[in-house]
Amino acid sequence: MQLSARNQLKGVIKAITLGNIMAEIVIQLPDGQEVVALITFTSSERLNLQIGDQVTAIFKSTEVMVGKEG
Amino acid sequence: MQLSARNQLKGVIKAITLGNIMAEIVIQLPDGQEVVALITFTSSERLNLQIGDQVTAIFKSTEVMVGKEG
Amino acid sequence: MQLSARNQLKGVIKAITLGNIMAEIVIQLPDGQEVVALITFTSSERLNLQIGDQVTAIFKSTEVMVGKEG
Amino acid sequence: MQLSARNQLKGVIKAITLGNIMAEIVIQLPDGQEVVALITFTSSERLNLQIGDQVTAIFKSTEVMVGKEG
Amino acid sequence: MQLSARNQLKGVIKAITLGNIMAEIVIQLPDGQEVVALITFTSSERLNLQIGDQVTAIFKSTEVMVGKEG
Amino acid sequence: MQLSARNQLKGVIKAITLGNIMAEIVIQLPDGQEVVALITFTSSERLNLQIGDQVTAIFKSTEVMVGKEG
Repeated sequence: MQLSARNQLKGVIKAITLGNIMAEIVIQLPDGQEVVALITFTSSERLNLQIGDQVTAIFKSTEVMVGKEG
Repeated sequence: MQLSARNQLKGVIKAITLGNIMAEIVIQLPDGQEVVALITFTSSERLNLQIGDQVTAIFKSTEVMVGKEG
Repeated sequence: MQLSARNQLKGVIKAITLGNIMAEIVIQLPDGQEVVALITFTSSERLNLQIGDQVTAIFKSTEVMVGKEG
Repeated sequence: MQLSARNQLKGVIKAITLGNIMAEIVIQLPDGQEVVALITFTSSERLNLQIGDQVTAIFKSTEVMVGKEG
Repeated sequence: MQLSARNQLKGVIKAITLGNIMAEIVIQLPDGQEVVALITFTSSERLNLQIGDQVTAIFKSTEVMVGKEG
Repeated sequence: MQLSARNQLKGVIKAITLGNIMAEIVIQLPDGQEVVALITFTSSERLNLQIGDQVTAIFKSTEVMVGKEG
C-alpha cells in the first residue's frame, strides 16, 4: 500500500517502553537523530516490534512545526 | 524556551511553496532524508523562512505511526 | 508494510478537490458514512488518486474525540 | 453545538480499556469496521462512557492519510 | 453533544481568511490571547462563521506541547 | 528559537498527573480557562515541570476545530 504521508523516515528501533495502554518506540535515523513514536500497546504487539527492527516513522506534514533560531 | 516535544530534527530548508493560506516547507536532514512541514503562510512570513536556512522540524510523538515490512 | 495505526477504514473515493497546496479527498465507507482527508496536492498526484479508487483512510487513535448525546 | 470537523462517524462502543491517564475506546461502525479513540481517563469518566453507548467518533480531515494499493 | 476533548476555549471570531480549500479563523479569548483554527472552507460555510461570532476552539490534549523558559 | 506554531498561550501549571509513559499537565490561562497537555513522562522530567511554573501551551492551528451554538 502506498501512503499519502509525505514524511516516511527509515530507521532502526533503539528502545521500547511498554505501558498499560501506550507504548513508546524510539527510532534511530541513519544520521544519529532520533524519532519517538507513541503508539498503542496493542499495535506494538500486533506488529511484534523489537529492538533492532528496521521500521519507518510515518507522520503527516500538517503535524510538523518549524523552529528557527534568532 | 525548552519544548516538551520529543521530536526535534535539525535540517536545512530545501524548498518552499507558498499558497494563499498554507506554505509547504521541505527540510533536508543530514542523512539526506526529507521532512515536509505544512504551516500557515503567515508563519512562514513571520519567521522569514528562506531556502538554505538551518531549521528544526518539531512534532509530537503522538503524531508518529510505525510501519514495518512483512 | 504493516502500520501501527489502529484506524484503517476501507472505502471508495467519491470526490476530489484540488487547491494550490492541498487536496481534499472524500471517501465513502460501505455504510454510506463519509471520511474526508486533507492531503497535499503533491501526494494526491503521486498516488494518482481518482474518483472510484478503492482506498484506505488511515488515522491514529490519538486524533479521535468521542462525542455523546445528552 | 455544531462542529467544524468534517469527520463525525456514528457508532456503538464495543470495548473500553482504562489506564492511569489514558482510556482506549473501541467504536463499531454500522458497516462492521472499527474506530479506536484514545482519550483521557478523566474524559471517559466525565462522559460516563459505557459499552453499548451510541457515540460519534470525531476527527479533523487534516489528520487522515490516504493509502492505495499497488 | 458532549465532547471528550479536554480543551474547549470560548472566544470571539476576530478575523477570517478564506482560501480555495482552507479557511483560517482567528479567535480572541477573554484574556486577549488568540487561537487560530485552520478548517476547511466547506466547514466555514456550513457553520456560517462570521466575525463577532461567539465560538469554541476545540482541540485534544494530545496535540498540545509545553514550552518553558530557561 | 522562534516557532511557526500560531497558537502559543501563556499560563501557569495548576496540576500534574504522572503515568508510566504519559503525563497530564493542566495549565491555567489568565482568563481562568484551562488547557490540558498530554506529554510523555520523559518530557515532563526533562523540563522539570512543577505546579506554579509559567509555561506556554503550544499547538498548531491545523489541530483546532471550531464549535458554534445553534
